[in-house]
Amino acid sequence: MLLLIWIPRMNIKKRIEEIKNFKDPVFSGLHVYTFTSNAHYKNRKDLLLIKFEKPVSHASLYTKSSCPSVPVGWAKNNLKGKIKAILVNSGNANAFTGRRGEEDLDHILNYVAEMLNCEKGEIAVSSTGVIGEFLNTKSIIEALSGTESKRGSSWLQAAEAIMTTDTFPKLSAKSLYIDKTEINILGIAKGSGMIEPNMGTMLSYIFTDANVDGSLLKSLLIDITNNSFNSITVDGDTSTSDTVMLVSTNEASHSLISKADDPRIKSLKNALNDVATDLAKQIVQDGEGATKFVEISVTRAKNKDIATNIAKSVANSPLVKTAIYGEDPNWGRIIAAIGKSYEMVNHESLRLFFGEHKIISKGMVLDNYNEEIVMQYMKKDEIQIIIDLGMGSCDHTVWTCDFSHKYIDINTDYRS
Amino acid sequence: MLLLIWIPRMNIKKRIEEIKNFKDPVFSGLHVYTFTSNAHYKNRKDLLLIKFEKPVSHASLYTKSSCPSVPVGWAKNNLKGKIKAILVNSGNANAFTGRRGEEDLDHILNYVAEMLNCEKGEIAVSSTGVIGEFLNTKSIIEALSGTESKRGSSWLQAAEAIMTTDTFPKLSAKSLYIDKTEINILGIAKGSGMIEPNMGTMLSYIFTDANVDGSLLKSLLIDITNNSFNSITVDGDTSTSDTVMLVSTNEASHSLISKADDPRIKSLKNALNDVATDLAKQIVQDGEGATKFVEISVTRAKNKDIATNIAKSVANSPLVKTAIYGEDPNWGRIIAAIGKSYEMVNHESLRLFFGEHKIISKGMVLDNYNEEIVMQYMKKDEIQIIIDLGMGSCDHTVWTCDFSHKYIDINTDYRS
Repeated sequence: MLLLIWIPRMNIKKRIEEIKNFKDPVFSGLHVYTFTSNAHYKNRKDLLLIKFEKPVSHASLYTKSSCPSVPVGWAKNNLKGKIKAILVNSGNANAFTGRRGEEDLDHILNYVAEMLNCEKGEIAVSSTGVIGEFLNTKSIIEALSGTESKRGSSWLQAAEAIMTTDTFPKLSAKSLYIDKTEINILGIAKGSGMIEPNMGTMLSYIFTDANVDGSLLKSLLIDITNNSFNSITVDGDTSTSDTVMLVSTNEASHSLISKADDPRIKSLKNALNDVATDLAKQIVQDGEGATKFVEISVTRAKNKDIATNIAKSVANSPLVKTAIYGEDPNWGRIIAAIGKSYEMVNHESLRLFFGEHKIISKGMVLDNYNEEIVMQYMKKDEIQIIIDLGMGSCDHTVWTCDFSHKYIDINTDYRS
Repeated sequence: MLLLIWIPRMNIKKRIEEIKNFKDPVFSGLHVYTFTSNAHYKNRKDLLLIKFEKPVSHASLYTKSSCPSVPVGWAKNNLKGKIKAILVNSGNANAFTGRRGEEDLDHILNYVAEMLNCEKGEIAVSSTGVIGEFLNTKSIIEALSGTESKRGSSWLQAAEAIMTTDTFPKLSAKSLYIDKTEINILGIAKGSGMIEPNMGTMLSYIFTDANVDGSLLKSLLIDITNNSFNSITVDGDTSTSDTVMLVSTNEASHSLISKADDPRIKSLKNALNDVATDLAKQIVQDGEGATKFVEISVTRAKNKDIATNIAKSVANSPLVKTAIYGEDPNWGRIIAAIGKSYEMVNHESLRLFFGEHKIISKGMVLDNYNEEIVMQYMKKDEIQIIIDLGMGSCDHTVWTCDFSHKYIDINTDYRS
């Protein structure tokens, strides 16, 4: 049974409506709590605690930024292979806060470890928001102190609690069957600006109850991340806090998947990939100031790296992104952006399409190119750009959004 | 005698006034002509021809784009070491125009070669403007046919004739003495968008009458370009047409400088560097939509590449650029941009300054950091960001501008 999955070219408003009406699947072995701590934001959910009944396996990937946040730095060295809880606060990234930031984190970890009767190394913590300010640990701990008496929250509320400049919560779910057992996969994510993830998006947590050995989760996560979170960009700005986490509760009743060559792993991976890609696309749909969703596919490259470099070079070009915002099929800017990747291209074999509309062939614009028709195409909410190199057999697709006045508005006063 | 040179923090309006009142130096051996061809723009100067009385030495650097324009591709293979003319048209880049673009260029070259009684390989041609459209060769040739009867133009008019989205002409000049002979250096440039030059900016031509052997020009040009045109960025979009050209007419009466270790070359190089840096800064001052000029210096890096990578990572971050537009000392975004360079940094030794205002030390914000004072600093027209890595002895400075609503305006309707 398909629960909820992104359908290309579906109107984003309809999609948000679906997310808001999402019916939680039965996910045994875990409890979701959300809080309004008023630590940084006022009167909005800003704290998420996911509690596991027993230690669960996870794999996590973090930003490659050389200035990672305090929680990312801590997790890389201290987080154990099995965890009892995930804690996320929004509004403050606890990044570049030095020793005081580490002390603040330790303070919170001590509190949660005592509350849950576990070790600090069993608590995965993420912080997202403004960089360089100190955490309001007092408000966070005060909020958490009410956990015992609190009713559980929905997954929608969980997705809402980790939002910063996001305008809608990001959630995706899918189910599949393994040995006739129904398996749940559910993921939440946040992110809208400072998005060009390199190993994980700003924050994303994907859960499954599939009975899969913890040792297999990391390679699964790397594979699905490369085609999803690592293939989106809003502004080319990799964050200090990027984290993506895959958790398996192992609650499903099928026999354990313990080997990488187990044939059942393929369908699990496909379903995980669908959920991760869906979440990644939601982040781009909610890109700061975005008015259009843009898919850039580079096909027939000599290798995957070339395809990826060219796709990202186009996706990160402010000139391409503003032309798309202006609904101008300014294909010359795409050529310039391909050129600035410095990857060798063969002008004679290069073909460029907006959707189904072919623009160039044999190193120049088509004889019968009709710009009027392509201008109509550019009015769509979702724009597809296909760059066919004609030089090999490797493809890569990247998702991005346009660059609008609203992007400038949002980012000239994000902190105020 | 100093003719005209950029003075840091000088009001740009005053500077433009100076450029507009620039008095041409006596530059023998060359003739400057400008035309209104109406080929692409209407009723504005759009064509520049510089004619040399005898063949002159030059060195040229071109874009590293893998999709270079037709004139760049042609020049790389066909331009001789000594040239008789430089021809530049604005409004159309003759880029990605395939075989027809090559035929158009050949048509123009044939005409000019006959007119000047020289070989095609002695004519340096540049085209700048929209990518992918075919040249209006008829209008260009018609305009050129009036050369013989035409009066010479000023250098200011030359700088104006190569403008596209530029809002002011870029011109810089300096003089120096070699063996008691006064030497002229004069440069013009254009560029406002699609600016992150890699070997030369969009277009720049620097002339000197110094009596220097043609074989020395290339290494001189590489050195001065790395610290000037290759150290600016407006939008991270390297152009298809970037060209920088250094021409020596050898008219000065001092004895020939023929060896790289000639002690006289140092003062010549310094003066050339001043002119190139001045032109590069003018391009950034005129960056599309720019409201502020930003200097980003990375100091005490382990090597020059690290310093350059970090400076460019910060200079190209839309989040840093929009914060500067919003006059927000959002230093966390600078930390994130340093991090996304993936260069290793030592948080403990990293220091960050806005102008003279120190922000961080020992991995966190200063105890006595007073944001009010730095907010006042951010209101200036020229912002200096210093990133002191404290890890070595290499520095690099990059110049850029902020990212404003007007950038979006300009680029959503550039072609219309």
